[in-house]
Amino acid sequence: MKNLEHIGIAVKDFAAANTLFTKLLNAEPYKIEEVASEGVNTSFFRMGEAKIELLEGLTPDSAITKFLEKKGEGIHHLAFEVEDIYAEMERLRAEGFTLLNEQPKRGADNKLVCFVHPKTANGVLVELCQEIK
Amino acid sequence: MKNLEHIGIAVKDFAAANTLFTKLLNAEPYKIEEVASEGVNTSFFRMGEAKIELLEGLTPDSAITKFLEKKGEGIHHLAFEVEDIYAEMERLRAEGFTLLNEQPKRGADNKLVCFVHPKTANGVLVELCQEIK
Repeated sequence: MKNLEHIGIAVKDFAAANTLFTKLLNAEPYKIEEVASEGVNTSFFRMGEAKIELLEGLTPDSAITKFLEKKGEGIHHLAFEVEDIYAEMERLRAEGFTLLNEQPKRGADNKLVCFVHPKTANGVLVELCQEIK
Repeated sequence: MKNLEHIGIAVKDFAAANTLFTKLLNAEPYKIEEVASEGVNTSFFRMGEAKIELLEGLTPDSAITKFLEKKGEGIHHLAFEVEDIYAEMERLRAEGFTLLNEQPKRGADNKLVCFVHPKTANGVLVELCQEIK
């Protein structure tokens, strides 16, 4: 694991949340991107090396829609940049962590991603991400 | 607001959580610090520019103990570095955010800190922090 790459925050009203975080962070989102495969709309704010990602669920079965129904708005996941996502997945499996993806999948922001089950990480949903070159 | 400074994670078993995060992050904590005024024990892992802070409640009335009772283990807060915490508090009050502290208070890691109420920030407990020089 390298640096903390971003923090994902689940929001109900995407437009209102973007306005709120623009005020809170005193910065505008630099990118808005729909990830149709995940059924989410995302926006990104740069805060130093790390990014804040707002996530809105677009379909009833998206992970974000389900999270909002169960837990309400708030922090959804932490993402760490990795150099070799396959090697890191193998290392974590060997350490006893449960991964939510057998293989890396394509995420927002031009990344290959894989999630670690929060039950094996003190209640924190952890994402590994590697930039696609 | 400048960079994302750290993420606070509430944990029940401090020793076990430090072992788990050492495996997860593939890095050792670089500092363990008790903050008696807040009734917490903290450990810090450096992940690029940002830090991961594990928090254990040491007293029944510490905010972390109460959080664990209500919500269980998981991410507790996001902290952003600011240049002038007094000016930033004034800016956020003027924008309509509710602050949990009238004045900055002393936190872990040699910082002045102030929290923004999660009800005014999409369910996210936001900390402003400024290094004490």
